Amino acid sequence: MEKGQLLYEGKAKRIFATDNQETVWIEYKNSATAFNGEKKAEIQGKARLNNEITSLLFEKLKEKGIQSHFIKRISSTEQVVKRVSIIPLEVVVRNIAAGSLAKRIGWEEGTELPCTIVEFYYKDDELGDPLLTDEHISLVGVATPEELGRLRDMGLQVNDVLQELFLEIGITLVDFKLEFGKDEKGNILLADEISPDTCRLWDKETNEKLDKDVFRRDLGSLTEVYSIILSRLGGKEAWSK
Amino acid sequence: MEKGQLLYEGKAKRIFATDNQETVWIEYKNSATAFNGEKKAEIQGKARLNNEITSLLFEKLKEKGIQSHFIKRISSTEQVVKRVSIIPLEVVVRNIAAGSLAKRIGWEEGTELPCTIVEFYYKDDELGDPLLTDEHISLVGVATPEELGRLRDMGLQVNDVLQELFLEIGITLVDFKLEFGKDEKGNILLADEISPDTCRLWDKETNEKLDKDVFRRDLGSLTEVYSIILSRLGGKEAWSK
Repeated sequence: MEKGQLLYEGKAKRIFATDNQETVWIEYKNSATAFNGEKKAEIQGKARLNNEITSLLFEKLKEKGIQSHFIKRISSTEQVVKRVSIIPLEVVVRNIAAGSLAKRIGWEEGTELPCTIVEFYYKDDELGDPLLTDEHISLVGVATPEELGRLRDMGLQVNDVLQELFLEIGITLVDFKLEFGKDEKGNILLADEISPDTCRLWDKETNEKLDKDVFRRDLGSLTEVYSIILSRLGGKEAWSK
Repeated sequence: MEKGQLLYEGKAKRIFATDNQETVWIEYKNSATAFNGEKKAEIQGKARLNNEITSLLFEKLKEKGIQSHFIKRISSTEQVVKRVSIIPLEVVVRNIAAGSLAKRIGWEEGTELPCTIVEFYYKDDELGDPLLTDEHISLVGVATPEELGRLRDMGLQVNDVLQELFLEIGITLVDFKLEFGKDEKGNILLADEISPDTCRLWDKETNEKLDKDVFRRDLGSLTEVYSIILSRLGGKEAWSK
């Protein structure tokens, strides 16, 4: 497989064409950004950690019957995935109040939610990725009510799998953001990445933050906590084989 | 009926007890506030205009079968209404993109919505009255899903009546905010006020703003445009009888 032209550069990844129309080549970047790009840094090792964690989690999800765009990891910082057209919604699944939800409803961070909730944010940097209700989504036309129901269901399914997986390794899955894409037949596939960049992960015993909040809030070394996640997921061994 | 002790003072009204447990006495204030209280002014005549417009609109809604807390206007700045416990949600009904919706979804102000939408905001000054989804409302527990459905339906019913009423007098009903309360039997009643403080009203021909945006955006005299609304609604005549 050959790497073709750059199709898109995001804050954390570059997407390249390949010699196969149905796949794209993803290159993870060492860039860390927060607060809609206001805070930025280059962090050596971040690309590798997120690529390895994402690859591992997409594999685990596939074992549980949840299809994603992921095909294979091809280097420490690269993957090949199915080419999809990204639905411009961030699908946020929350088990525990934290971040913007804690602020929005005035609950203390760490408060367990009586039930898991799913939120949708408009993937639009210029608008600041605003929260959308189902009616807003219908207005902007980025998903039909049926598609929205499917995104909500898939978000909850991913939550069931990941919550159990993280619990087994002593980690509380607080919340996470997913993105979805459509393939050329219109099938909705899980896409983007699942990593400590996109999840809030707290040590179950100590509540220590093992995710991007370490960077957002200057709480310590990002690569140190991301390495803990990869290591507990069994990643180090898996990739050194 | 006797005016009793002050029960509550809001930004635009004072609520007093009466000698009847089932009613309260509302006194409109001349205070104008915007941006969650950041911009403030005292505007002579505002209390009278909002009291007269609200009284008139609640009467019109009653004629169309929409019950509210309103009982009667008792002076130029005062009403007696049924005592209700206010549901802490601002129910916003929108026909045309303006204000926070235009910003949120990136549509130009004035764009007609393909269908009327209803939004819910958490009535909480400290939190900045944030937008809530149905799931957030379920979390914070301020309304059951059934009650939420009822609020949405009543919002749309009020819209049908007001849209027609304003159209007849050459005014476009862009959007408006309602509040609802529960009486002691748990019945949901329309409450608070309906005035140019709580509606966006544009002249149908010129698109001139005839509402609180005149104050928010320093576009002219608030009492002048509120008087136009009252006058077109037939208010001046009605109250001078």
